[in-house]
Amino acid sequence: MPIVTLTTDFGLADHYASVLKGVILGIAPRATLVDITHDAPAYGIGEAAYLVAESWRSFPKRTVHLVVIDPGVGSARRPILLEAEGHLFVAPDNGVLAQVYAGPKAAAKVKVRHVTNAKLFGPGASTTFHGRDIFAPVAAHLARGGKPSQAGPLIEDYLRPHAGVPVRTGHRVWQGQILRVDRFGNLITNFLAREFPAVRTRPFVLIPGITRVEKLVDHYAAASPGEVVAIVGSSGYLEVSANQASAARILGVGTGAPVELSIY
Amino acid sequence: MPIVTLTTDFGLADHYASVLKGVILGIAPRATLVDITHDAPAYGIGEAAYLVAESWRSFPKRTVHLVVIDPGVGSARRPILLEAEGHLFVAPDNGVLAQVYAGPKAAAKVKVRHVTNAKLFGPGASTTFHGRDIFAPVAAHLARGGKPSQAGPLIEDYLRPHAGVPVRTGHRVWQGQILRVDRFGNLITNFLAREFPAVRTRPFVLIPGITRVEKLVDHYAAASPGEVVAIVGSSGYLEVSANQASAARILGVGTGAPVELSIY
Amino acid sequence: MPIVTLTTDFGLADHYASVLKGVILGIAPRATLVDITHDAPAYGIGEAAYLVAESWRSFPKRTVHLVVIDPGVGSARRPILLEAEGHLFVAPDNGVLAQVYAGPKAAAKVKVRHVTNAKLFGPGASTTFHGRDIFAPVAAHLARGGKPSQAGPLIEDYLRPHAGVPVRTGHRVWQGQILRVDRFGNLITNFLAREFPAVRTRPFVLIPGITRVEKLVDHYAAASPGEVVAIVGSSGYLEVSANQASAARILGVGTGAPVELSIY
Repeated sequence: MPIVTLTTDFGLADHYASVLKGVILGIAPRATLVDITHDAPAYGIGEAAYLVAESWRSFPKRTVHLVVIDPGVGSARRPILLEAEGHLFVAPDNGVLAQVYAGPKAAAKVKVRHVTNAKLFGPGASTTFHGRDIFAPVAAHLARGGKPSQAGPLIEDYLRPHAGVPVRTGHRVWQGQILRVDRFGNLITNFLAREFPAVRTRPFVLIPGITRVEKLVDHYAAASPGEVVAIVGSSGYLEVSANQASAARILGVGTGAPVELSIY
Repeated sequence: MPIVTLTTDFGLADHYASVLKGVILGIAPRATLVDITHDAPAYGIGEAAYLVAESWRSFPKRTVHLVVIDPGVGSARRPILLEAEGHLFVAPDNGVLAQVYAGPKAAAKVKVRHVTNAKLFGPGASTTFHGRDIFAPVAAHLARGGKPSQAGPLIEDYLRPHAGVPVRTGHRVWQGQILRVDRFGNLITNFLAREFPAVRTRPFVLIPGITRVEKLVDHYAAASPGEVVAIVGSSGYLEVSANQASAARILGVGTGAPVELSIY
Repeated sequence: MPIVTLTTDFGLADHYASVLKGVILGIAPRATLVDITHDAPAYGIGEAAYLVAESWRSFPKRTVHLVVIDPGVGSARRPILLEAEGHLFVAPDNGVLAQVYAGPKAAAKVKVRHVTNAKLFGPGASTTFHGRDIFAPVAAHLARGGKPSQAGPLIEDYLRPHAGVPVRTGHRVWQGQILRVDRFGNLITNFLAREFPAVRTRPFVLIPGITRVEKLVDHYAAASPGEVVAIVGSSGYLEVSANQASAARILGVGTGAPVELSIY
């Protein structure tokens, strides 16, 4: 029972995501399909990269991860196939897989191929819906046991965007940023807690936007309702959270905003 | 082919719901996964309890229902496993399963266990995502045929919140409330039609908020467009509905609002 | 592994869509369930018809398409079963399948039955939720190999709404309309590009609302950011699009709006 995950910015009101699924099931009828999300911000490559990075290792090896955030569809950007830790990824070469091969959670070793084998594509490839015509058929080919090497040649010059790791700006001061605001209004920073263990034992100040956060709690309910605190989130990153309220709304801070961390 | 249903307040824009699925499929690869909803109101235990209560009996016996509405994650609240009519439920002990064992649609008999067997949990349990680390692995264990008794001991002191049944306040007057406003703007009351059969044969007045509703119709199209009427909804409760319009919006009434029923 | 697709206006916050799935899996446990969408506009028969028309051929033959957009539930409108090109459709007879049998993408030949065999229905059919009580059980019966002829007799008088094809209004002028605005704000017109091949070779003007669009591009990225252009969309229709922006918002035009096409 091969698994194919889907990450797109297609939304759920249109039929586009279902078309990918129909194509996959036509080729790999026994596949189990799992949506990561179809609500990645339209054209939001950075946030989609975060969602892929935070979900893929929860799935068993041999899972095929289909990622279609593709504002450059029809242009010269290449379709790629990435192998990492026994998982397979099919996506456009626009940085949406960047956190699989770069940054604090990168796989130790990846192989990347330029998908060129048109025999694997659907009939009559369009210039506007490569998800249907290229990415989904290739993912289904892999799900039914097809070899990655059939898809195309190995490449080294795939896109490697800036990884977005915190930058040291003072003796005990680092400049980071908000990777993502989740549904609960948690601000997920790019400070990986295991790289800043001193926050657990020493005074610190975390400043998302203009607000000082100096208290670290173990779990949400350890804060008073509405109190803004730091917490080590489920992803391992420091998060700024409010118990039963949206820290993002309280602080007026969103994705991409700078965050300063000082440890005393 | 075991079935696992999922009810959470994670939304669909984040990766959290997909992580539960990856964990389940890693343990129970043949499971069929069905979303009840991931859009339960954040921290909305009462409404999530309604959604669970209205859906579980539609599934075959042996279905495992995973419910993660968990504002107390990491605190002292216990994970529980509930057995009722051949179905299994895994959830935090915070009342989200209350309508399975209390109120007008309760199962005749339930068994509840405190989930304590850490051998069933995922590696490195966090304090912020027990859905991934505790509830999903336990649900998957059950889906692949694991015995409920392996999860932990039977308990009797699980949370039993107020059931929210109508209260008689006069000779032929009852005070109830709105359980839920659905997507169509139907106001679902907690008056179970079979307990108030006289509404079908005698004059009555149903007052959600400040509006009097005195007409019962068989189906939505029997009302004029926009007319507000009472109807016996698909759940068996009296609903206040408007044909092709939102009764909630027309009346300005929402979940939790009081409703008075008088039968003459 | 039979496939059942689901198209409804139930939304994803309520339990209704999951109830259909529970019913189907109780009857056809091996079915693979795929959501087309549950966010069809409430009571929006025309747009749902478009979503069905654009998705069904992506699935393998023998797929069962369950469509529950049913404002007339409980009234005299009939449940129907439609066969086309080896696919099966179960829906109310209200026009929601119209684009399968009429218009530019119609199947060459269809068979339509009035679903009358109450042995296939669920227990205690309600007057408000035929999705659960009639449509889902019939779809599941077909998914597990039941014969269409068991559902009821062939009929010819099913609803045939106006097909919405462009109308010629001048020498080289046609009046069409917007079929759908998708998540990206693309305006999908009812001009099928293969029926208007001259737009690829001759000057033309497409006027959605009050704006003139005179440029056809091959893919979105060929337009400047925010530029409004015409494009042959993935469905084969002419679309009005803006690169990385919403053409619908820029032009202030929505579903159902008229579009004039002139070719010089």
